[in-house]
Amino acid sequence: MYVRRNIRAGLILQFAWRNLIGFTFWSLLVTGCYCYLLPRGIDIRLPFLPLSTIGIAVAFYMGFKNSQSYDRFWEARKTWGGIVNNSRTWASQVSGYVSNHFNPSAPLTAAALKDKHRELIYRQLAWLNALRLQLRRTTIHDRHNISYVPHVQLSDGKPGEPLVSTFLPDNECRQVMSQGSPPAQLLHRQSLALQQLFDAGLLDSFRHLDLMQTIRECYNLQGACERIKNTPFPRQYAYFSTIFVWIFILLLPFGLVGEFSKLGTGGSTWLAVPFSVLISWIFATIEVVGDNSEDPFENYVNDVPMTAICRNIEIDLREMLGETDLPPRIQPFNDILL
Amino acid sequence: MYVRRNIRAGLILQFAWRNLIGFTFWSLLVTGCYCYLLPRGIDIRLPFLPLSTIGIAVAFYMGFKNSQSYDRFWEARKTWGGIVNNSRTWASQVSGYVSNHFNPSAPLTAAALKDKHRELIYRQLAWLNALRLQLRRTTIHDRHNISYVPHVQLSDGKPGEPLVSTFLPDNECRQVMSQGSPPAQLLHRQSLALQQLFDAGLLDSFRHLDLMQTIRECYNLQGACERIKNTPFPRQYAYFSTIFVWIFILLLPFGLVGEFSKLGTGGSTWLAVPFSVLISWIFATIEVVGDNSEDPFENYVNDVPMTAICRNIEIDLREMLGETDLPPRIQPFNDILL
Amino acid sequence: MYVRRNIRAGLILQFAWRNLIGFTFWSLLVTGCYCYLLPRGIDIRLPFLPLSTIGIAVAFYMGFKNSQSYDRFWEARKTWGGIVNNSRTWASQVSGYVSNHFNPSAPLTAAALKDKHRELIYRQLAWLNALRLQLRRTTIHDRHNISYVPHVQLSDGKPGEPLVSTFLPDNECRQVMSQGSPPAQLLHRQSLALQQLFDAGLLDSFRHLDLMQTIRECYNLQGACERIKNTPFPRQYAYFSTIFVWIFILLLPFGLVGEFSKLGTGGSTWLAVPFSVLISWIFATIEVVGDNSEDPFENYVNDVPMTAICRNIEIDLREMLGETDLPPRIQPFNDILL
Amino acid sequence: MYVRRNIRAGLILQFAWRNLIGFTFWSLLVTGCYCYLLPRGIDIRLPFLPLSTIGIAVAFYMGFKNSQSYDRFWEARKTWGGIVNNSRTWASQVSGYVSNHFNPSAPLTAAALKDKHRELIYRQLAWLNALRLQLRRTTIHDRHNISYVPHVQLSDGKPGEPLVSTFLPDNECRQVMSQGSPPAQLLHRQSLALQQLFDAGLLDSFRHLDLMQTIRECYNLQGACERIKNTPFPRQYAYFSTIFVWIFILLLPFGLVGEFSKLGTGGSTWLAVPFSVLISWIFATIEVVGDNSEDPFENYVNDVPMTAICRNIEIDLREMLGETDLPPRIQPFNDILL
Amino acid sequence: MYVRRNIRAGLILQFAWRNLIGFTFWSLLVTGCYCYLLPRGIDIRLPFLPLSTIGIAVAFYMGFKNSQSYDRFWEARKTWGGIVNNSRTWASQVSGYVSNHFNPSAPLTAAALKDKHRELIYRQLAWLNALRLQLRRTTIHDRHNISYVPHVQLSDGKPGEPLVSTFLPDNECRQVMSQGSPPAQLLHRQSLALQQLFDAGLLDSFRHLDLMQTIRECYNLQGACERIKNTPFPRQYAYFSTIFVWIFILLLPFGLVGEFSKLGTGGSTWLAVPFSVLISWIFATIEVVGDNSEDPFENYVNDVPMTAICRNIEIDLREMLGETDLPPRIQPFNDILL
Repeated sequence: MYVRRNIRAGLILQFAWRNLIGFTFWSLLVTGCYCYLLPRGIDIRLPFLPLSTIGIAVAFYMGFKNSQSYDRFWEARKTWGGIVNNSRTWASQVSGYVSNHFNPSAPLTAAALKDKHRELIYRQLAWLNALRLQLRRTTIHDRHNISYVPHVQLSDGKPGEPLVSTFLPDNECRQVMSQGSPPAQLLHRQSLALQQLFDAGLLDSFRHLDLMQTIRECYNLQGACERIKNTPFPRQYAYFSTIFVWIFILLLPFGLVGEFSKLGTGGSTWLAVPFSVLISWIFATIEVVGDNSEDPFENYVNDVPMTAICRNIEIDLREMLGETDLPPRIQPFNDILL
Repeated sequence: MYVRRNIRAGLILQFAWRNLIGFTFWSLLVTGCYCYLLPRGIDIRLPFLPLSTIGIAVAFYMGFKNSQSYDRFWEARKTWGGIVNNSRTWASQVSGYVSNHFNPSAPLTAAALKDKHRELIYRQLAWLNALRLQLRRTTIHDRHNISYVPHVQLSDGKPGEPLVSTFLPDNECRQVMSQGSPPAQLLHRQSLALQQLFDAGLLDSFRHLDLMQTIRECYNLQGACERIKNTPFPRQYAYFSTIFVWIFILLLPFGLVGEFSKLGTGGSTWLAVPFSVLISWIFATIEVVGDNSEDPFENYVNDVPMTAICRNIEIDLREMLGETDLPPRIQPFNDILL
Repeated sequence: MYVRRNIRAGLILQFAWRNLIGFTFWSLLVTGCYCYLLPRGIDIRLPFLPLSTIGIAVAFYMGFKNSQSYDRFWEARKTWGGIVNNSRTWASQVSGYVSNHFNPSAPLTAAALKDKHRELIYRQLAWLNALRLQLRRTTIHDRHNISYVPHVQLSDGKPGEPLVSTFLPDNECRQVMSQGSPPAQLLHRQSLALQQLFDAGLLDSFRHLDLMQTIRECYNLQGACERIKNTPFPRQYAYFSTIFVWIFILLLPFGLVGEFSKLGTGGSTWLAVPFSVLISWIFATIEVVGDNSEDPFENYVNDVPMTAICRNIEIDLREMLGETDLPPRIQPFNDILL
Repeated sequence: MYVRRNIRAGLILQFAWRNLIGFTFWSLLVTGCYCYLLPRGIDIRLPFLPLSTIGIAVAFYMGFKNSQSYDRFWEARKTWGGIVNNSRTWASQVSGYVSNHFNPSAPLTAAALKDKHRELIYRQLAWLNALRLQLRRTTIHDRHNISYVPHVQLSDGKPGEPLVSTFLPDNECRQVMSQGSPPAQLLHRQSLALQQLFDAGLLDSFRHLDLMQTIRECYNLQGACERIKNTPFPRQYAYFSTIFVWIFILLLPFGLVGEFSKLGTGGSTWLAVPFSVLISWIFATIEVVGDNSEDPFENYVNDVPMTAICRNIEIDLREMLGETDLPPRIQPFNDILL
Repeated sequence: MYVRRNIRAGLILQFAWRNLIGFTFWSLLVTGCYCYLLPRGIDIRLPFLPLSTIGIAVAFYMGFKNSQSYDRFWEARKTWGGIVNNSRTWASQVSGYVSNHFNPSAPLTAAALKDKHRELIYRQLAWLNALRLQLRRTTIHDRHNISYVPHVQLSDGKPGEPLVSTFLPDNECRQVMSQGSPPAQLLHRQSLALQQLFDAGLLDSFRHLDLMQTIRECYNLQGACERIKNTPFPRQYAYFSTIFVWIFILLLPFGLVGEFSKLGTGGSTWLAVPFSVLISWIFATIEVVGDNSEDPFENYVNDVPMTAICRNIEIDLREMLGETDLPPRIQPFNDILL
């Protein structure tokens, strides 16, 4: 997530310069050809009104794409908001539910009880970090045409697992990470752990089921993330939007020289060049903005800041456990919060 | 679901070539007639401004259709996401709930208990595969005008039932598949199986009802799929969109020759031909994109990848049961994941 | 619900012919007047650019209306989808919950228990059929301007009650149908029947409340249908849309003769007539499509197919009861499924 | 709520005549000035293309406002639909839950039990009528610029309280109506009444909490109504829409005389006057339609028909109690149902 | 929240005057240059049709931004509506659930019980006030380009804590306010307090879990507020909208002088100046309206009126406790309610 209110001119240029040079070159070429060919009886002008109609139709089509891309981002963000809420609820439930109350004959010591709480809360932290790592892994589908910002270093630790292993015993971590869907298996382990607590008399049926309800919610949240990750915005919608914009951009200078030539005095035709570059840039930018926001879990500038959210949950939950050696919050790096 | 980020030019051409030839022929014909008739005093030009107004109105109308088609696809995908979540929840609940705890006098052996778990989890897998097969069956309504990609082979097994029968005893499978709605009857059987477990003392009332809650969810998810399958996008909206676009495309060359003739020097009128083909193709494509995305369960390129989702659930659930002879994940075939 | 993918030309003409004749007459009149008056110094042309602006603004306004009409239809369809889901859930719950388990001292015979199940499930079928009949009854508000397709016969039986009476004892049916809101009173009776089963020991508190939850859902679904039925799309939005389109259509020929006259050679002015008819028809059709889809419960072509849905539920539920003398599914009549 | 399908011309004129006179006067003035000044070398024409651009941008902006106003109305209507559903559910729950079953030692007589039911159901009726009266009270914010239809008499009784007092003992009614939020205090009293029934053994814990769930829903529904009432559509969006439309209307005649003057023969310039009035009226009407639908609880033509809904609920609930002296349904007055 | 129906001209001018002067200066400059340069053979006119196309595309893009900004505001308002509802529900639950019923052997006095109620209800009030203060604190992201209205005094008390401390014992308040997320810790304390009441026999399991359900809701509502606060509207969408509008405004006078020059008689070119200022102002205002509504928790004119809502909840809840020394409702200050 980009955190500055106004995007730095440098970043805009970094994305735009290649296009700007291309647009300039193309409109210079077209205007030049026009000026060269017209006296020789060849007219390459296009009427602008039909172009304007395409322009509006395409702008409308891109509006639809932008709107859906934003919805994908916002749904992803909402899902991670739900992960925050459920993690806090889980911690409050575990602290308030797992107790000696239903087991007065053989009560655990306060420290042993606290250990049970910590185990369940830490496994929740392991779950959300494992989910984050799974989502940030690049998919099998080809995505090389998205221009990643190369100098953004992911602060995920090198192979990734370390951050999950903080919250799990070593052998459990190894077993879980080797399975098909580590986060799903972690939630499954939570449900088995609850059953053991119930069998051990540390939980009654009411509270067992209320905790299971939270696990159900977590399955739903994980599923929502996986759905957005694994189902890209339908390509037939997305790709044609790109094609249409480029067709419009290619035709634009032909139409603009026509319009300028209508104004009369000859020299102004070359004004078509900067004007064409500007209009092309606006359309190309509208298109790219939607394209870049489509996938919120790709290690990219516009990602949902999952690393920061995971850390915030860690701080809240460990504070609820009374721990004080808390890690610092994640800070934006190069104006980007991941 | 098409999985490449950029659609292969070949696939685009495969859909477009017929139209492109038609557009070229039509605009050649119109431009030729115009050039032939004008000197003879017959003017077939149309003013472009009214055409532009229709173009924008129609683009707007198609925008509405595209938006609703996408919503249908996305709701279908969300529903299958919900099936993933509920299946995982079901497996965790069954493993954690069905136990000897409430039946200490006559406990089952661990293996017998495991069998009970497997039966319930396998019937869930049977349900979702039966639902997939029911949805992929072509409906009674005529749909021949959608151009299916013929060489895409469905990997569903030949008559379909085998994959359901993997998860059910033979006679149950036969009985269920002969009824009106096999998936609904499978869920009904789940609820009867729960009642028997409750009567046998392997489940208490709390857990019985929590499992019933998951079955209720499954009924809702199945109903959502059937609703999308059985209620096509209202034909009055969809069909007129197609008609309007074709009217616009038919009128377009008449308007373009008018605009080109305004620019002056005569030869450029024939530029109307490629320009007309391009604009026609853009409008026809916007229309077709919506049309092809309307129905997400039709064995088609843009389907929800139900086969892959079913397989992923199978892997997750059987891993939760501790099984290791897992089938491989479904891979895209010709860039298409079904 | 219209079930053919392409609407038959006959049906389109049936709706359109009156308008088409009117549009032709009007544009002939305007063009004729123009040709007659212009040489006499009276110019009735209108500039087209302002007309185009109205056209786009009106298209935009109709887009809003179409979108809301579709939402009304789709919400109605979703509600009936919910009725399917809740009816299936109700049948599974009743079969799995109402039992001798909580009443071991004086158990019912299997047949008597089955009767209890059937009574509750049949009353659910009575509820949904009563709801359908209530919704299909024409409202008190004047709706004569919607062109009903007169030869579509409702297959509801003549006075309607028979289909409800199939599922209820005679005297209960009579009492219920005489009250203000029969479906609401049927749900109320379900809740009283549950209380009696609870008092008789055939149901425990857990299951009693879970069934009440399903009744609560049914109240919600009934309320949603009644809301859509009783609250038409706000007239200030809907009616002005119609007025605006007709103003646009009336002005259109004045503008078109102006545009054609600009093109130059005189004879082509009469091309304004077919062009005007075409544009008028497109705008009128966009308007009518929204207008006709606004109310999904009016015995109309675009209705939610409630009769077919009710029958499908009947088949599913009676199959769950093990019955075999099932009625056939409803087939479309004249391409229309009601 | 206006109930006629086609709005009476009289009502439209009643809203429009002031504007129509104003528009006519203004466009006459501008056209007159133009004709007078042009020969004197002063040209007050505006080019129409930029005006058209503003027109489309403003139409688009109004579309957003209209859409949100409709959403506000529809959410309000949905909320009152929810009040219908919850009231029916409440009546069924109360009748089925409050019983002697849990209190076999000291059972109430059937009549005393019925009294308990009636008290709870009548207080629900008091709640919804109190909510209606609170919502219909004009807010502190200035709203004098909305043109209320003066001759619509509210059938609420003069000071309003009587209708609430029908359902409550006198002293309870007095106490409640003197507090900050009478409806909230009525729901609070329902929850205290439930506690007393529980203490008296007429309700068990299961049913107590299920009824509390319905009260929670009622709090949510009341809160939704208060939110819409107290948070007008943000003024920055709404007010600028009005300003933009009026700017467009003021500039319109300057642009139209320009367009007409382009058509050539001089006399037709005065056609700009009726054309201008028509376009102005369309834009002003689109604007006003949104403005008038924004607030659904203001004693206004476009209100949610709360009085009628309250009466319908009263009839249903009292029929469930077996009462027969039921009041008649509310009828529309001057085509308006309140 | 601005409460007047029509925004005061003064406030509009306060926001607009800088821009208006700038627009006037710029269009004077452009028109002047044009008049000076044209006779010298340099033509700086731009054709208007391409500009119109950009104008419409940009208006469309801004429409998307405005719509999303409004959705952010309305979601924030809904969330605070949910806080109202949950707070009232909490108070009714606490009053009705925490009792001597489950603890007949060692009952508390009525006063001691009332104290328990008050403690739980006051901590809820502390929670919502702490949440309000956390949301109103300015974020770390740079926001200096939003023009805060400087003379609006926040009525929050100076350092903020006092209002929270009203509802908490001193030491609890100190502890809580020093932690990472005070509101989350307050909810956690509520859940621990419930556990103690349960251990002390003042609450049974049913009611304990129902209260926990309300705490879960509060976690969700807090999370929704934090999500909106911490995730600004994606900058790539918001910032480019601003850039595009300014590009359009810069180019506008070049296009307008072109259009005016087409009309013919020379003097009217200077009419381009006021016309340009007006169009520029409309586009700039549409842009700014969205920009200013984007963030609903920033101590700003368009904030959700959290202070007023908190006070209203305080009045309702303390009235439910039977208290009478209630604070007055918050009144708008300078037409602004915070």
